[in-house]
Amino acid sequence: MNDRLLEETLYHVANGYIGVRGCFEEGHKGESIRGCYINGFYDTVPLNYPEKLYGFPDEAQRLVNLPDVQTIRLFMDGEEFSLFSGEVLGHKRKLDTQKGVTYRDILWKNEKGTFEIKITRMASFVHPELFLIVYSVKSVDFSGEIELACNINCDVSNFTDENDPRVASEKIKHIFMDTNKIVGDVSIVECKTAVSKLGLSICRQFVAGGDIAHFATKNGCETRIKSKILPNQSLTTEVYTILSDTRRRNNPTQHALEKLNECFNLGAENLLQGQADFLADFWMCARVDIGGCDELNDGMEFNLYQLLQSAGRDGISNVASKGVSGEGYEGHYFWDTEIYIFPFFLFTQPETAKQLLRFRLNTLDGARNHAIVMGHKKGALYPWRTISGSECSSFFPAGSAQYHLTGDVAHAFIQYYYATDDLDFMQYGLEVLLETARLWLDTANLGSDRKYHIHSVTGPDEYTCCVSDNYYTNRTAQHNLLGAVEVYARLKKAGLHSFASDKINFDESELLEFARVGNAMFLPYDEKLGIHAQDSSFLTKPVWNLDDTPKEKFPLLLHYHPLYLYRFQVCKQADTVLSHFLFEDGVSEDVLRKSYLYYDKITTHDSSLSVCVFGIMASRLGFYEKAYSYFSETVRGDLDNTHGNTKDGLHVANLGGSWLAVACGFAGLRLRKNGLHFRFSLPKQWEEYSFRVRYHGSLLKVSVGKESKVELLSGGSVTVFIDGVETKIK
Amino acid sequence: MNDRLLEETLYHVANGYIGVRGCFEEGHKGESIRGCYINGFYDTVPLNYPEKLYGFPDEAQRLVNLPDVQTIRLFMDGEEFSLFSGEVLGHKRKLDTQKGVTYRDILWKNEKGTFEIKITRMASFVHPELFLIVYSVKSVDFSGEIELACNINCDVSNFTDENDPRVASEKIKHIFMDTNKIVGDVSIVECKTAVSKLGLSICRQFVAGGDIAHFATKNGCETRIKSKILPNQSLTTEVYTILSDTRRRNNPTQHALEKLNECFNLGAENLLQGQADFLADFWMCARVDIGGCDELNDGMEFNLYQLLQSAGRDGISNVASKGVSGEGYEGHYFWDTEIYIFPFFLFTQPETAKQLLRFRLNTLDGARNHAIVMGHKKGALYPWRTISGSECSSFFPAGSAQYHLTGDVAHAFIQYYYATDDLDFMQYGLEVLLETARLWLDTANLGSDRKYHIHSVTGPDEYTCCVSDNYYTNRTAQHNLLGAVEVYARLKKAGLHSFASDKINFDESELLEFARVGNAMFLPYDEKLGIHAQDSSFLTKPVWNLDDTPKEKFPLLLHYHPLYLYRFQVCKQADTVLSHFLFEDGVSEDVLRKSYLYYDKITTHDSSLSVCVFGIMASRLGFYEKAYSYFSETVRGDLDNTHGNTKDGLHVANLGGSWLAVACGFAGLRLRKNGLHFRFSLPKQWEEYSFRVRYHGSLLKVSVGKESKVELLSGGSVTVFIDGVETKIK
Repeated sequence: MNDRLLEETLYHVANGYIGVRGCFEEGHKGESIRGCYINGFYDTVPLNYPEKLYGFPDEAQRLVNLPDVQTIRLFMDGEEFSLFSGEVLGHKRKLDTQKGVTYRDILWKNEKGTFEIKITRMASFVHPELFLIVYSVKSVDFSGEIELACNINCDVSNFTDENDPRVASEKIKHIFMDTNKIVGDVSIVECKTAVSKLGLSICRQFVAGGDIAHFATKNGCETRIKSKILPNQSLTTEVYTILSDTRRRNNPTQHALEKLNECFNLGAENLLQGQADFLADFWMCARVDIGGCDELNDGMEFNLYQLLQSAGRDGISNVASKGVSGEGYEGHYFWDTEIYIFPFFLFTQPETAKQLLRFRLNTLDGARNHAIVMGHKKGALYPWRTISGSECSSFFPAGSAQYHLTGDVAHAFIQYYYATDDLDFMQYGLEVLLETARLWLDTANLGSDRKYHIHSVTGPDEYTCCVSDNYYTNRTAQHNLLGAVEVYARLKKAGLHSFASDKINFDESELLEFARVGNAMFLPYDEKLGIHAQDSSFLTKPVWNLDDTPKEKFPLLLHYHPLYLYRFQVCKQADTVLSHFLFEDGVSEDVLRKSYLYYDKITTHDSSLSVCVFGIMASRLGFYEKAYSYFSETVRGDLDNTHGNTKDGLHVANLGGSWLAVACGFAGLRLRKNGLHFRFSLPKQWEEYSFRVRYHGSLLKVSVGKESKVELLSGGSVTVFIDGVETKIK
Repeated sequence: MNDRLLEETLYHVANGYIGVRGCFEEGHKGESIRGCYINGFYDTVPLNYPEKLYGFPDEAQRLVNLPDVQTIRLFMDGEEFSLFSGEVLGHKRKLDTQKGVTYRDILWKNEKGTFEIKITRMASFVHPELFLIVYSVKSVDFSGEIELACNINCDVSNFTDENDPRVASEKIKHIFMDTNKIVGDVSIVECKTAVSKLGLSICRQFVAGGDIAHFATKNGCETRIKSKILPNQSLTTEVYTILSDTRRRNNPTQHALEKLNECFNLGAENLLQGQADFLADFWMCARVDIGGCDELNDGMEFNLYQLLQSAGRDGISNVASKGVSGEGYEGHYFWDTEIYIFPFFLFTQPETAKQLLRFRLNTLDGARNHAIVMGHKKGALYPWRTISGSECSSFFPAGSAQYHLTGDVAHAFIQYYYATDDLDFMQYGLEVLLETARLWLDTANLGSDRKYHIHSVTGPDEYTCCVSDNYYTNRTAQHNLLGAVEVYARLKKAGLHSFASDKINFDESELLEFARVGNAMFLPYDEKLGIHAQDSSFLTKPVWNLDDTPKEKFPLLLHYHPLYLYRFQVCKQADTVLSHFLFEDGVSEDVLRKSYLYYDKITTHDSSLSVCVFGIMASRLGFYEKAYSYFSETVRGDLDNTHGNTKDGLHVANLGGSWLAVACGFAGLRLRKNGLHFRFSLPKQWEEYSFRVRYHGSLLKVSVGKESKVELLSGGSVTVFIDGVETKIK
């Protein structure tokens, strides 16, 4: 059963806007998470606490499972097709990452005859509102009547699991039908969410090979298509479904009808070709080739394609931790985006990267409000998890306390600037850098050691919460503060600083403060071990005995009280090691190595955000076997369901991590203030590998093998550093 | 309006078993918390978390508001008496702490005439199941018919306030009527709680001056008493109500009927006399006399009386933080008992003190289970808040993380032993000492400094949570470990150790471990400041600017996010200073003084458990003005409603604190391993003061004035230390 739920995730079709899980059109027997989502389309749910303290959020947003638009039932002379009746002679599913579609091929037989059913699905990248199904039935030996029943069904609710803190636990109906009607050949269903009152319009039209009839039903619309069929004849139906919503459109029905008209007129063939063209462009920049290992190549291709499917590209949405593939973590956006996912887009699809930053820019007011709630007198504190910009985390020790997210956001803006030199966008983005820097100014305080300290925050590792001087956080804050100073200076030089600084009443004297605090940030270091301490008390705690912990006790968070976990040196995920990856400058080789070795021993990787980072740092430090092993674990994480919960959606951060593992791991890519750096290594299992990088408007191909090189595929010449040597690529 | 809710608390009658709030018999117009409770009688409520992690309790106990048994409506020729109609010529209420009753005296007039109404209420200390009302109406100038309607009404629910984390937020009906019937002259109502399925029986009988009729009603029973009355005539009615429950009795109805019979036969006069006799005995040991200040004397008398009303004396119940006077904190038992309340009983009513310890002994299994949930391999961890023994705290950083409670419980057992030498009880109590000591063994760990450290716990100060090496906790743990060793040795000497040690498979080698860890416990100390640090990171944080914090921002917990509070040196309440009060040995005068002065500046006293402790330590250190000022604040806390929420119940810990402030503050009482110590001081505002102390079976009177002395009132001679000088009292 679990395999089917897993496949529903793996074969979902999405385009960053809509996502439809890969359920069987004809329905299931038994468990299924029949899901259809719009990225960022949420209902509001109350957060009720048995003990509510000041500032705990009263409500959260939750991704809504939309009306079912994937159901197509098939009847042969009135007998219904199902994989749970008759005889399944063949059933193949395929995801075509080059064409951007999924296929199902079924050979099925019942007492009436034998049938070949072929189904193609697409969530269009060119027309993000479009979900297309091309459904074809061929009779092998049957003569008689074929009938299809295609539904839009609003009687849906979200998936719940009481026993897993990572999915919603309360069953609430989130979406209700307002109107349903048939206008000419078009079915129209309008819905509203229960509390947030967001509107959704679904419009649908068919190209049908038989007699067609439309009905408004109790819960939506139904279309029935009938045809007589003879052996070797086929009946092919194209179902054009458009979804549009009030978060993006004032009149979503009108917009949906226009889009439907446009797509319907283009026709399935053109639309599919458009999708293939889009993907050709995508792969031109995104392709990663690993010579000598098909399995890994397949894994990488799957991962990068899923990243594309997951990323919102409209500035209103972002990349949920599960993309639009499932309901895990309720469709919330976390730091996963900036640290794990954003780099792939930055270096292959910078336009999408910009849209992801626009989301943070658009929700800056939410971050300012959140800062106030959390006690700050100034600055912006981005919420730990959100859809529309307000904090949706109800357990602050592993939520709002993760201040590092705010530094992660700033880091992404700074990286974007370094990679694109896009001054035009950065004049707006500067506001984020200044407001986040102000937050750190209001958070850090001067200790008796004349260093600045940050108390009561949680780093990435949620097995240790609410600590002083988390190294990762302090380093991120430092980077934020100093980055704001630098970007401000560069923009000022270009005369582009005033839009942001005027808007937030920024006084240049604040820059001095940023620099002063940033430069004097305390970074905990243990002399004896020669490593950076995860936080000020971490290394004084006993080391958790991982060797003697039974396998069934993992992930630890499902078997130990958090307070108990806090009491030990045991990490859910990369924390200090992640910081060493992101901010290597000024850290000696020796400290990098010792820290890696130290934390490697005490990290459980219970989070899917961990192994890729350890893999990258293993590469960096020459632990090639380790690097390769971590990479292998990363690259097939969802395909092999290594965390056991891919049914709830993809682990998108880990997908991004697999790209990082190649580019930043094996090829040593780093984007520093002074430019793009590489430090190549080649896993001994491979003959060669290559990937593409966009940098300052040019497209580079990086090939690593017996001979390694960086080629210019398009755009002007650029300078990069290979093993520290400045190299002009032309 | 608030005054009336306040009075409902101040004039409640209770006896440690039942508690009835001082609402108007005839009812109210507007807000009222009409409450009747049995100590420890709870319903089970689910704890639903928006994000539930491992080990968070699924359910909690909640004190149930029982059926209303205090309603008596009065009619004059059919016209209903109410303080909100007619003309109130006089209305006096009085609590008589010598007789153990409350009075209402009303002079009231309407168009029919003028009436004097006198009402006496008693919750009997001798017969804890008995709630007695003697209701008398006298006509001044009225001739006509008087009618009383007395109800038992099961249509009740608990008080809720969505906006205060300290009271329940969810409206749920907790008690339902099973049966109601009239048997002869007795009304019988049987109820059950909704989820916990606890049974309650209420039986009632009357001595009435007129015609009487009983009815079973929709929600209980009603008795109507009618009489013709002439000017200067009175109608007096005695209402005997017995409450009995299944937590104490197998057949509560049978028990209630027997009790009713017993009490009814004794009659009101005898019962009232019995109450007075009981109180004479109580005051014989409990009396505190402050020469020269009636207001403080009244305050003390009120406080000590309320302590008596609040304390469960059956080993099944304990002292809820609000006694049985209201629903604040849902009737839960906290550490308040052991640290703030227990000493009063220990030194004045040791039999009650023993019952309070029996509660902890009886719930030891719950503490063992809680330890397991919290990750421990052995030992007992008492829950932060409970009624029946399981953890009811839903926010662990300020709940279960307060491990010190376990040490506080151990401290009470040890103090009991020192004060009473009750080896017979201690052979059972030893189990608690050994199991709690085991907990610390499993919690503390050896650092590189060869000291034992305790990580991720919360001390008494909830403005700083989940820290390493909270001084208070470590010191408490140390005392627990070493105390277990000592008490074990003493019991072994008496041949009384094996009951406990056999039961829990105790190996004497564990004693060596206890001693080793206890003696090497790390106690954070700051060289520069010369003070004990509240925890390992506390003094590195910035000091909260209390001077510039607007008054309306207090208590801080209602105006700042906990994470923000955690980031500062700001204390809700005494923490290190409390430890210095409890465990002074080995701490230099200089450290005591500097610590007091340091923490005094940064403590908001937002908890009612704070000022008494600061007052005690101020006395100890010779800051007499401060001591007196803190004492004044302590002693009239509830009478003057200084925390603004006495409507939800008394602040019982603070009541106990007022006794501590006199005995341990001004008179410097400390109970140490080697005996009872005094160090007298006399506030300059007073001529003299005295109080009584029971010690090793004798009753002492301690008088402090121009001449100070300790006299033996009863029992054998005992030795005490006055200013360190061993003194025989005979």
